[in-house]
Amino acid sequence: MPRARISRCDGACPVLRAVTILDGKWTLLILRDLLQGTRRFGELRRSLDGLSPRTLAERLRTLEREDVVTRRVYAEVPPRVEYTLTTKGRALAPVLEALGAWGSRWSTSSQRA
Amino acid sequence: MPRARISRCDGACPVLRAVTILDGKWTLLILRDLLQGTRRFGELRRSLDGLSPRTLAERLRTLEREDVVTRRVYAEVPPRVEYTLTTKGRALAPVLEALGAWGSRWSTSSQRA
Repeated sequence: MPRARISRCDGACPVLRAVTILDGKWTLLILRDLLQGTRRFGELRRSLDGLSPRTLAERLRTLEREDVVTRRVYAEVPPRVEYTLTTKGRALAPVLEALGAWGSRWSTSSQRA
Repeated sequence: MPRARISRCDGACPVLRAVTILDGKWTLLILRDLLQGTRRFGELRRSLDGLSPRTLAERLRTLEREDVVTRRVYAEVPPRVEYTLTTKGRALAPVLEALGAWGSRWSTSSQRA
């Protein structure tokens, strides 16, 4: 039962720990893109319509600090900056899969329980 | 492969649809609590340390509007208000489970990939 597995939430609740890192819509969409493979900063920016470059940079810094993403700068002109998921980041695939499955099944708000 | 299942993101990306509803840390924590069963407003408020009653009410209204949560008011003094997940809301259990599993496995930021 799902209920039993989630009921162990207390001061060290693993759901809380996870969502504290993943706070907000944009972080999950960044992860969605990076699960496809390494991306340049500009590629992420173009993919995430409505996200400012400043917020994108800030979210990527947080993910880097949490060891979810690695950042690599290539000494080119102009400099090329690429972002890749770490093992910890790739381990988020089941979360995004579950979100995608739910979004597919319950895509319209007119479907009532 | 997880990659194949997530790569179908386009204008109608199901991940986007899902996270648009679930934006923010607090919504996921509200869902975590409601997956345990029906909760009164005050119970949710006490459980979610740091969340203002105003924001809690706003998030619950959004979830109600999206048919994720039902709200029931009992004609008592003082009035009792209870929140319960709909079928659509209970279908989010796998998302919370995946988040919890990830939080358990990768709880400390010192674990490098």
